[in-house]
Amino acid sequence: MTEATLIPPGSTVGMLGGGQLGRMTALAAARLGYRTHVFTPEPDSPCAQVCAEATVAEFTDHAALIQFAASVDVVTLEWENVPPEALVLLAEHVPTRPGAGVLAVTRDRIHEKAFINRLGIKTAPWRPAHSVADVASAVQDLGRPAVLKAARLGYDGKGQSLLRADSDLAAAWHHLSEGHALDAVVEGFVDYACEVSVIVARSPDGSRCAYPTVENQHEHHILARTIVPARIAPAIAAQAEDIATRIAEALGVIGLLAVEMFVTRDGQVLVNELAPRPHNSGHWTLDACATSQFEQLVRAVCGLPLGPTDRPCNAVMENLIGDQVERWPELMAAPEARLHLYGKREIRPGRKLGHVTWIGRTFGS
Amino acid sequence: MTEATLIPPGSTVGMLGGGQLGRMTALAAARLGYRTHVFTPEPDSPCAQVCAEATVAEFTDHAALIQFAASVDVVTLEWENVPPEALVLLAEHVPTRPGAGVLAVTRDRIHEKAFINRLGIKTAPWRPAHSVADVASAVQDLGRPAVLKAARLGYDGKGQSLLRADSDLAAAWHHLSEGHALDAVVEGFVDYACEVSVIVARSPDGSRCAYPTVENQHEHHILARTIVPARIAPAIAAQAEDIATRIAEALGVIGLLAVEMFVTRDGQVLVNELAPRPHNSGHWTLDACATSQFEQLVRAVCGLPLGPTDRPCNAVMENLIGDQVERWPELMAAPEARLHLYGKREIRPGRKLGHVTWIGRTFGS
Repeated sequence: MTEATLIPPGSTVGMLGGGQLGRMTALAAARLGYRTHVFTPEPDSPCAQVCAEATVAEFTDHAALIQFAASVDVVTLEWENVPPEALVLLAEHVPTRPGAGVLAVTRDRIHEKAFINRLGIKTAPWRPAHSVADVASAVQDLGRPAVLKAARLGYDGKGQSLLRADSDLAAAWHHLSEGHALDAVVEGFVDYACEVSVIVARSPDGSRCAYPTVENQHEHHILARTIVPARIAPAIAAQAEDIATRIAEALGVIGLLAVEMFVTRDGQVLVNELAPRPHNSGHWTLDACATSQFEQLVRAVCGLPLGPTDRPCNAVMENLIGDQVERWPELMAAPEARLHLYGKREIRPGRKLGHVTWIGRTFGS
Repeated sequence: MTEATLIPPGSTVGMLGGGQLGRMTALAAARLGYRTHVFTPEPDSPCAQVCAEATVAEFTDHAALIQFAASVDVVTLEWENVPPEALVLLAEHVPTRPGAGVLAVTRDRIHEKAFINRLGIKTAPWRPAHSVADVASAVQDLGRPAVLKAARLGYDGKGQSLLRADSDLAAAWHHLSEGHALDAVVEGFVDYACEVSVIVARSPDGSRCAYPTVENQHEHHILARTIVPARIAPAIAAQAEDIATRIAEALGVIGLLAVEMFVTRDGQVLVNELAPRPHNSGHWTLDACATSQFEQLVRAVCGLPLGPTDRPCNAVMENLIGDQVERWPELMAAPEARLHLYGKREIRPGRKLGHVTWIGRTFGS
């Protein structure tokens, strides 16, 4: 750890994005004596409620970005769709971790999948698509069902379309493109046994660590629960951790990298997608690990020693989506439940409003 | 739990006082989806750095207090020397927990000791003193050494004077009173084996719980470390918990009550002092308990069910006072250490700048 990379306690962490991931990072930063200054277009964001300073401005507002850069000692992010120009601009003034180079890969499914495959790491079979003709040719190669996904700006199932045997490819394309130019990928069907993820932390000096492989269950394309540990063979879990670590290393990420993967019925591990930030599947670490993913992010971007990532117990994390948050009285009263609410005023379907981690629980028990 | 007493998540907790106790309460409140609005005379306080709103004003500024009351759903405090008039005023507008009645007892050593003794609970032998003549008569009764303590506004050994065999009583009195009228107590010498404390939480519906008895070691009148559990016989620990619970009940406190006690060499438990707020000797609960004292305070004042208080492991909490905070790099790197820093910019002798909890550690190991 060289002097140049160390951002000591008392410094200010700049956070791009004002959602719950930023909020929980700011809470972890505060514990270690850091101030957080959030930059987000959203007024009264979940993150701003717990920050020393907040700038409410668009990520395209260069004057606001320069002023923000001058007021912080390091910049990190909780939203990977920050425009690359914003990160390039910030990096001229202040250490920006992760940097624009990492996001250039992870914000675009085409670049991301190509990058992963170049490392010799498997993904679902896929083709880039820039037109209906590309989609038709891709499903010719990959078969149906397949999934058409916008290359950029998708999350929680937004910007995706399932291509069934009887789907109209042109309709699917136009639904996604809304008449504009569109970069997309077509992914072949994967008959997977389960979805898993691994979160890796990496520091400026190259030191790194991985949290154990966890299992994720989605409902309506949104993470419903994370089961810790993943119910897979230890050798496959180790393979997933190795894959995630290799990708983090190849990307040279400073901060966190979450790697979502499919485990197929025949035991293959295929990478699904990457996120260079705290990840919903790591929320269990808040209550079950000595160092949460949020504290680990602060440690990594500030050049502090990384903390322990071992798993002392089983756990199940459930998201509270939309009106599920109304379960809070029951969850508040359950001794083995650790409830986290995000301070969002409005309950909307599909909106993540909180989560609960059941400590010591094995899924199904 | 009646509707009238429940302050649901999404509400705003008003915090009187901006120090580290308020800061850690605000962090716990945020986890449960509450906003915190701090009221403190101190600009850029440790608490304000993590709050949604901050009012910087004196506790005697009635207009500011009324405006504050209108912006919050419940008021609590982290500093027991808030003027009673401020609490009375606030309580006209918003639930104020604990209330002025509790503070009227705990902010004055004469009232506090008399209250405790009326419950049939022992303290060190003591006499009230309003003049040098009272002090002379008290040491006549109690013997020397004895301790002269100002009745109000003392903390961390401030406002105290040791009366040795050769001490000049008039000089001690004048040192403390600085020529003004003074209410004080003289406490007889207690040959104690150790100091312990118990923190009790109590809700509007009267439900309550106590954290286990812990042992406190002071250096230069400031808490240096807390050893969990206290190294005393289980029957004595149970007696301390019973005493603390009886006092909390008799006071009718809503929120937390910390009770500091001496355990004498012959196994008596004598109450030393009370604090109706989070307490330095409860910081270990942040890392070792399912529900920390800070979360418990939020639960109690918001009328939520109280959380578990059992102790899953041994622990030792060490305060980082003055330049001890410079140990942070070593503490950040120790896997069993949980470091908390308070965001105070200036290192001063005797100032509490952070603490570290050693999880699983037995004192001396």
